[in-house]
Amino acid sequence: MALDTRPIGVFDSGLGGLTAVRALCRLLPGEDVVYFGDTGRVPYGSRSRETIVKYARQDVAFLRTFDLKAIVIACGTVSTTALDVLAAENPIPVLGVVGPAARAAARLTRSGRIGLIGTQTSVRSGAYERAIHALNPAAQVTAQPCPLFVPLVESGRFRPGDIVIETVAAEYLEPLRAAGVDTLVLGCTHYPLLEEVIAACMGPEVRLVNTGAEAALAAADYLRAHGALSGRAEGGSCRFFVSDRQEDFACLASTFLGRDVTEAVGQVDIGQY
Amino acid sequence: MALDTRPIGVFDSGLGGLTAVRALCRLLPGEDVVYFGDTGRVPYGSRSRETIVKYARQDVAFLRTFDLKAIVIACGTVSTTALDVLAAENPIPVLGVVGPAARAAARLTRSGRIGLIGTQTSVRSGAYERAIHALNPAAQVTAQPCPLFVPLVESGRFRPGDIVIETVAAEYLEPLRAAGVDTLVLGCTHYPLLEEVIAACMGPEVRLVNTGAEAALAAADYLRAHGALSGRAEGGSCRFFVSDRQEDFACLASTFLGRDVTEAVGQVDIGQY
Repeated sequence: MALDTRPIGVFDSGLGGLTAVRALCRLLPGEDVVYFGDTGRVPYGSRSRETIVKYARQDVAFLRTFDLKAIVIACGTVSTTALDVLAAENPIPVLGVVGPAARAAARLTRSGRIGLIGTQTSVRSGAYERAIHALNPAAQVTAQPCPLFVPLVESGRFRPGDIVIETVAAEYLEPLRAAGVDTLVLGCTHYPLLEEVIAACMGPEVRLVNTGAEAALAAADYLRAHGALSGRAEGGSCRFFVSDRQEDFACLASTFLGRDVTEAVGQVDIGQY
Repeated sequence: MALDTRPIGVFDSGLGGLTAVRALCRLLPGEDVVYFGDTGRVPYGSRSRETIVKYARQDVAFLRTFDLKAIVIACGTVSTTALDVLAAENPIPVLGVVGPAARAAARLTRSGRIGLIGTQTSVRSGAYERAIHALNPAAQVTAQPCPLFVPLVESGRFRPGDIVIETVAAEYLEPLRAAGVDTLVLGCTHYPLLEEVIAACMGPEVRLVNTGAEAALAAADYLRAHGALSGRAEGGSCRFFVSDRQEDFACLASTFLGRDVTEAVGQVDIGQY
């Protein structure tokens, strides 16, 4: 079997994509990962399609200064808005979160009533609905934009008992409860931090789909199927790059990554790519 | 007296600066205004000094493609972080919000205990404290960053009775209440929309300083003192430019501007400046 020791590139508008890195490193501890978080221009989720495509192209152009075997778009907004463009323009595989999350939702639902939460732009794109309907044309998808979830998570307000996040979550999730969904796609890589709050609001019978974790699973399957794993069982490294100050990275990053960040962090002038 | 019919340039990280345009047009209805809102990269308030200086230079470079008589930085974050650099680099007057707000606070306080709220970067800069202490060395300034105020305002959650904004405001403002401030500088041009919520929290005896309105007053005084007014009593025009989609501008802009936006809005590729 062929071995491919080149690193996997992962990027996000900010640090939410580290939830995918966390899953990827758990699944494939022998792979090297290069992560770029566009902290100088975060958030993407309220911006227009044109701006997101432009930013995403620059993110990929930076990552491709490394010799990568694949790129994982660990960002719901970019995946819903720019995956086609990026996949067409690049000779290496570019994998997003939409397909894996849609497959998980289609597999988990029993009633066919699926909920979707994401940023304004993700929901407006209709990409998750199209992917779910391609798998299950009878599925009823109820979609709800949740623009305050990202800033609330980044402010540390993601814990049960916080009346602010609980009030905002209850408002956003009410149409999904009313629609009786039995499966809910957390369509943004920031949202796994809200899993407890969302689960408490939706009830124990509703299954939650973690898009970052599903994307990591799908990337692992893809590399395995294409004989492109490194062949190492452990010892993979992570390199981190951001577009704003490195100093501000470590604290928030460790929340998403589930461990301390001990690696050096590089700064990138992303407007130049 | 000399007349100067060139327009005044105004910019902000996003649309909050329109609260200054609103005041400027009310004070000087015969002046032309060119506004740039960096909606493609908003918010600035959580970014590093280096990134803010870079973005602000590009904002000014775009505005200066017009033949302007002065530039008003209608952004607390840029004023606290990049005013010196911008003023030194440009041959036309560059006016910020810090000086005018500090003068208003120093004039209004009786106890000398002054509160300041702003973005993370504004508060970290210490610029308001330095400006207030230059006027009143005995003043006691208590500063509090309020990172969620901008996203909450942009989500329309700025009205009294909303438990989310009221809870967040009560938390942020508690140290200022505890310090017994009698004057509070609203150090971000988004915050005038929160005036009712903040006033209810602080009590009627605390005076609030609206930085956008103070900056507009100071700009009017400056132009008058330098014989640089247009000489027209009315009929000034406004031109609006943004760095993200124009289509998304009008709705939120009218909230800040206090009137409908009927003018055409231009889009700018700000990364090129």
